[in-house]
Amino acid sequence: MTVTSVSAEYFPNEPKHPVVASTSNPKSKEAIESLGKNFDARGAYFVADYSKSNGNYIADVDGNLYLDVYAQIASIPLGYNNPALIELAKSDKMIRAIVDRPALGNFPGSDLEEIVEDVLKVAPKGQDKLWSGLSGADANELAFKAVFFWYQAQKRGYKSNFSQEEIDSVMQNQAPGSPELAILSFERAFHGRLFASGSATCSKPIHKLDLPAFKWPKAQFPAYKYPLEDNAEANKKEDERCLQIVRDLFKSWSVPIAGVLVEPIQSEGGDNHASAEFFQGLRDITLQNGALLIMDEVQTGVGATGVMWAHERFNLQPPPDLVTFSKKFQSAGYFFHDPEVLPNFAYRQFNTWCGDPARMTLAGGIGKEILKYDLATRAGQVGDYLYKKLHALSEKYPKYMQNLRGKDRATFIAWSLESGEARNKFLSDMKNVGVNIGGCAEDSVRLRPTLVFEEKHADILVEAMEKVLSSY
Amino acid sequence: MTVTSVSAEYFPNEPKHPVVASTSNPKSKEAIESLGKNFDARGAYFVADYSKSNGNYIADVDGNLYLDVYAQIASIPLGYNNPALIELAKSDKMIRAIVDRPALGNFPGSDLEEIVEDVLKVAPKGQDKLWSGLSGADANELAFKAVFFWYQAQKRGYKSNFSQEEIDSVMQNQAPGSPELAILSFERAFHGRLFASGSATCSKPIHKLDLPAFKWPKAQFPAYKYPLEDNAEANKKEDERCLQIVRDLFKSWSVPIAGVLVEPIQSEGGDNHASAEFFQGLRDITLQNGALLIMDEVQTGVGATGVMWAHERFNLQPPPDLVTFSKKFQSAGYFFHDPEVLPNFAYRQFNTWCGDPARMTLAGGIGKEILKYDLATRAGQVGDYLYKKLHALSEKYPKYMQNLRGKDRATFIAWSLESGEARNKFLSDMKNVGVNIGGCAEDSVRLRPTLVFEEKHADILVEAMEKVLSSY
Repeated sequence: MTVTSVSAEYFPNEPKHPVVASTSNPKSKEAIESLGKNFDARGAYFVADYSKSNGNYIADVDGNLYLDVYAQIASIPLGYNNPALIELAKSDKMIRAIVDRPALGNFPGSDLEEIVEDVLKVAPKGQDKLWSGLSGADANELAFKAVFFWYQAQKRGYKSNFSQEEIDSVMQNQAPGSPELAILSFERAFHGRLFASGSATCSKPIHKLDLPAFKWPKAQFPAYKYPLEDNAEANKKEDERCLQIVRDLFKSWSVPIAGVLVEPIQSEGGDNHASAEFFQGLRDITLQNGALLIMDEVQTGVGATGVMWAHERFNLQPPPDLVTFSKKFQSAGYFFHDPEVLPNFAYRQFNTWCGDPARMTLAGGIGKEILKYDLATRAGQVGDYLYKKLHALSEKYPKYMQNLRGKDRATFIAWSLESGEARNKFLSDMKNVGVNIGGCAEDSVRLRPTLVFEEKHADILVEAMEKVLSSY
Repeated sequence: MTVTSVSAEYFPNEPKHPVVASTSNPKSKEAIESLGKNFDARGAYFVADYSKSNGNYIADVDGNLYLDVYAQIASIPLGYNNPALIELAKSDKMIRAIVDRPALGNFPGSDLEEIVEDVLKVAPKGQDKLWSGLSGADANELAFKAVFFWYQAQKRGYKSNFSQEEIDSVMQNQAPGSPELAILSFERAFHGRLFASGSATCSKPIHKLDLPAFKWPKAQFPAYKYPLEDNAEANKKEDERCLQIVRDLFKSWSVPIAGVLVEPIQSEGGDNHASAEFFQGLRDITLQNGALLIMDEVQTGVGATGVMWAHERFNLQPPPDLVTFSKKFQSAGYFFHDPEVLPNFAYRQFNTWCGDPARMTLAGGIGKEILKYDLATRAGQVGDYLYKKLHALSEKYPKYMQNLRGKDRATFIAWSLESGEARNKFLSDMKNVGVNIGGCAEDSVRLRPTLVFEEKHADILVEAMEKVLSSY
């Protein structure tokens, strides 16, 4: 659709700039303390007033209005109080999904097929089926289940039944019914914080401490030298080094590796990028070893990097076996295409709700808006605009903007500071000039604005950064 | 509130009886096949038309109207298209929760405190804090995390920090950072189907086959002789036998047991009941062994057994350390009371969304309606009425109604048949006379109607059962 400013179309009253009414946030502090009596609110940055939030701006209870480039940890797709989503939220379909939540596996509603088809309209290339879950961690664990079912079914014959020994031993959580199998993931990866997803996560100790874990292997994810254009040869060697680690783990790990799980860009772990060749190499290794490839698009998906799904840039053949989603889609689950990734019997991939049709309906509505305005391409354009400005800023303030990452990846941009303290001070200083911005890894800053973040918002962001950085 | 029939109050147009328009369900079959192309629909009983469902009746696309005593696997609390919940679904608060889903741990909305307080108004006795999740499995795994955090913090000192060795080893999924610890659960228990919850689940092989699992111990849950009143002495011994197994496992298990997880009534596993003395014994054992007690009220909670939470009948002192909920509450999570069950540091019990305020708002609304009409007590009354009729029926058809269970537990009633085939035939025959009814364990039938199932509905259920059973 040929609209100059989609944000102006959606949000005629979007603020023109941030409002800093209070940097001491007394009302937020009071509300956090009060909430904390019965809900863990120790991680709260501030208490938001969502009724006053609008488009790219989030309001708090102290009257501040922040330009939000963190967007609920990368999960608000189309701005606060988006009118198209409000209309959808008021629809009979949504109201029914809220008040008559079905057990989708047993009693699907007559509208489920349409809901699923709407989501599939924006599925990754080559994927035509889905299974639905409730969060990114849940999506990944459901994908692990599909991988393990597939792996054992391949050994047994897809339609072969379980042996009596398997049936008996599984009730003791013992092999052969409960086999020792692994998912391979990468150092610095983040895949969620339940027990199996947490076993695959490897970005920060705080996510994992004190929790029992499966002893699953971790390979190394490429650590490139920047700027990329000056280090092509070294980075190519880095790809090969990391792929060889994966090959070696397949040979040497104490239990069979049934699947490889990887983010197209390691997000929580620091916005670590890798080349299409690296991912093509991973695809080949999984094929050679009879394992499945899971792309975790929880943070990178839904237009955030300038294409609908970040891995579509890698031209993987065949496409990934499973692609997990959540966050910006507001729903969660995985896409797949191979009919044998469907479990061989009913009731294997099953639970009471099997997803949430209210959130799935919203995902379909979000996909529709993205297509209508071509928002992934627009995010790419504004990202190019923003990257150039940030690059110039990084040359002016190199100490505070190291390893600028995310060129040609829309607004999915990050950089590092010299320490965690410096990074945290920067985030806090940005808040004091009216920008809500988030970190990743120990020392980095990540931009994760909505898909309706435009050049005018980029200008405000850069201006605020200049204000903070020039004060250092 | 003094209303004779709450269902008549909510549903003036509720059908007076089931309508059986088609027992071959051609439209459902066609819709299931079509849906099956991109969504696993092999477990579908029929395709529902939720727009035509009303109160205790669920409509399907073939024009059938079933009295629903299964209620979305025990999860519809107040009937289909409940007007009070529809009103709530249309509220600004709900619409905002749908379109502006916050990362609750970082950016709670100004309405979160009220939402949490509304849920806590119907918390189990002695519980005054909650943490929110997304499903029963998720709720249990979040509770496991809290248990493991607590267990290690007790050893280390609640406010003591992690050692460098813990921080280093956890990134390899190795001890001491990732310790070997266990949750003890019971044979025939059901606690969900993710990897840790699945490791605690022990009711059917199909839930667990081909999945790696933690090697956690299973004790035996009492298997009582019926009728209970004639077997008091034997059943008391059975309690003691099972408690001794738990004590022995605490002494002998290869890794420390940090928590005991138990359902007040084992539901999916066959509606297996146990005495207050058994649960009091479990409470004592956990206290003696420095472990926590988790009551899984996912299926038994929210009024289903004639009290708000089934374990409140057991008079546990101190109350359970964690109580997990989901299903009828439409939201999920756990209640707790001990300030030290709150993790010792921020960001330990954390994830992107930390629950779903839309579903939490609904839980608060459901709680309010239950209090307004005293629906738990009413469920108890109609349960007594129904149980008497079923007891009479079981004497007439003893082969098809063995071990009738659930006296004085409202409509939370079950019985067994002589085989899985006989049970499945019964369920199918009931559908053909207009009743949607579910099974549990291998050979049992479970009743799980809504909280607005009344005597008039009980009469229709019993009449339909008589019709089916008299044809055998």
